Amino acid sequence: MADQLPQVLVLRPPPVFTLLETQFSQKFHFLRAWESPLPTADFLATHAASVKAVLCSGDTPITGDILRHLPSLQLIVTTSAGLNHINLPECRRRSISIASAGEIFSDDCADLAVGLLMDVLRKISAADRFIRAGLWPIRGEYRLGSKLGGKRVGIVGLGSIGLEVAKRLEAFGCIISYNSRRKKANISYPFYSNVCELAANSNALIICCALTDETCHMINKEVMKALGKEGVIINIGRGSIIDEKELVQCLVQGEIGGAGLDVFENEPDVPRELFTLDNVVLSPHVAVYTPESFSDLYDLMVGNLEAFFSNKPLLSPVLDE
Amino acid sequence: MADQLPQVLVLRPPPVFTLLETQFSQKFHFLRAWESPLPTADFLATHAASVKAVLCSGDTPITGDILRHLPSLQLIVTTSAGLNHINLPECRRRSISIASAGEIFSDDCADLAVGLLMDVLRKISAADRFIRAGLWPIRGEYRLGSKLGGKRVGIVGLGSIGLEVAKRLEAFGCIISYNSRRKKANISYPFYSNVCELAANSNALIICCALTDETCHMINKEVMKALGKEGVIINIGRGSIIDEKELVQCLVQGEIGGAGLDVFENEPDVPRELFTLDNVVLSPHVAVYTPESFSDLYDLMVGNLEAFFSNKPLLSPVLDE
Repeated sequence: MADQLPQVLVLRPPPVFTLLETQFSQKFHFLRAWESPLPTADFLATHAASVKAVLCSGDTPITGDILRHLPSLQLIVTTSAGLNHINLPECRRRSISIASAGEIFSDDCADLAVGLLMDVLRKISAADRFIRAGLWPIRGEYRLGSKLGGKRVGIVGLGSIGLEVAKRLEAFGCIISYNSRRKKANISYPFYSNVCELAANSNALIICCALTDETCHMINKEVMKALGKEGVIINIGRGSIIDEKELVQCLVQGEIGGAGLDVFENEPDVPRELFTLDNVVLSPHVAVYTPESFSDLYDLMVGNLEAFFSNKPLLSPVLDE
Repeated sequence: MADQLPQVLVLRPPPVFTLLETQFSQKFHFLRAWESPLPTADFLATHAASVKAVLCSGDTPITGDILRHLPSLQLIVTTSAGLNHINLPECRRRSISIASAGEIFSDDCADLAVGLLMDVLRKISAADRFIRAGLWPIRGEYRLGSKLGGKRVGIVGLGSIGLEVAKRLEAFGCIISYNSRRKKANISYPFYSNVCELAANSNALIICCALTDETCHMINKEVMKALGKEGVIINIGRGSIIDEKELVQCLVQGEIGGAGLDVFENEPDVPRELFTLDNVVLSPHVAVYTPESFSDLYDLMVGNLEAFFSNKPLLSPVLDE
């Protein structure tokens, strides 16, 4: 029975797959590469030569090597909004379609970005630590946090997540400006073509852009210096958008004011120097993780696969610019 | 020189006084009761019989006893928004004026309320603890948080803080309703006259009301049961608005889903049972604490005292309803 269902290759199970595997498996027959004792290349050569569709997450690299072993591949469905794990030129060359999570995570990502900013400014996690360590009765008053209202917030990457961040922060009285590849039509927030200039004019930077060759290590020492000693960096994009080594040094030496980080360069490894800093809030790449968004994601992933196998248009195709 | 300045009694120094004492002391001559070795009653009898103005904070009780020792008192300036530390009937009887912090903290309080709600729902502090304990590489994926958008949030006390909370949460897609002494004119949010009914129809309650005889322990076991196993309570009002013993029991036994608490019944003592719970965020009564609001508070406190001593109307008088 299961063999009659359309075949979908999974190299490593995305969280939404693990959580909702029973439902997924009623609709598709999954080739489970991660469970095989064979090396990936052998598994693919033996079992996946005819596979037309892959389901993957943002931390499963779909390299040129993988693609070479999948000569019949026509569709990659990724549970991520980002595409930096996929060899896009090769997909383009072979006309492999890609469907992504699209904007399904934008609200949750924006919520976490605002939550991290608030936490760093108002010291929520640090204060919670202070109480749990039993220090309130001993040390008395806690250090002042910093007000959200009136803060100049620079959004790096004003896509669907960045716009949701801006909408929320306006309700707190923050003053928004942004940097992106080009000025957006119909957006009244001040635009800075240079991220350094944006940093120099901001109390906080919120990194919401995609990781590409251009944005890799875009937030470098120069940007951090421009942001300054009171400035805060929030990253819900990808770890490598920031030069993490420089970031750690700037935080340790007090050259920037604080950071809220949901992503890191070598997850799950987080630089241990950050563990002792009270002006840093660390989050294990969970910006998109709520049951509500997972349920929406499930519907979208299934919808894309079903559309593909019935020759209908994808629900959330990735369109090259 | 200092003796020629208007006299103001301070029983215990409010934080804003400690922080900005030099500026304060250029304008007023402060009688510093907390520095005297004498018992308070003796200090007041000896030094303060003629004092006309008191500067106090929310944790300095201005009892009938204190007032009896201050026969010339005409003004109490409190650095708090709440008045539950002041014997109001006695002040009314003696026509002692009161000036409070008014709405100066509303933005900061509302920010922290939203921050605590987000932290409980998205597990920000708990996730930060998870990383700092080095658990990410060992345990892998972190538990899912819960989405803010679409949550039904019941605001208990829709004054200036409650309205600011509502404004912010609307930007996150939350659905607002409220309870207060009476239905507000010109407010379209659904009104519940009964806090239990509000709880039964809410995913989260945010306590923004003043502590009065009527609101003391208003959030009791019945309200928590109505809120239910997934429900979250945020308290930025006063600790005693919640029956803390019941709250601890409900949290320990999983009868409510979580809590974000800036205030407690016996500060700085926090029930230790809460220290081990990951669905609880603890904050040391810092909702109003930012340098920005302190600076505004200083201006307001000085303005009220100057107005009083030059027979002008107070800037932020407390008007009996």
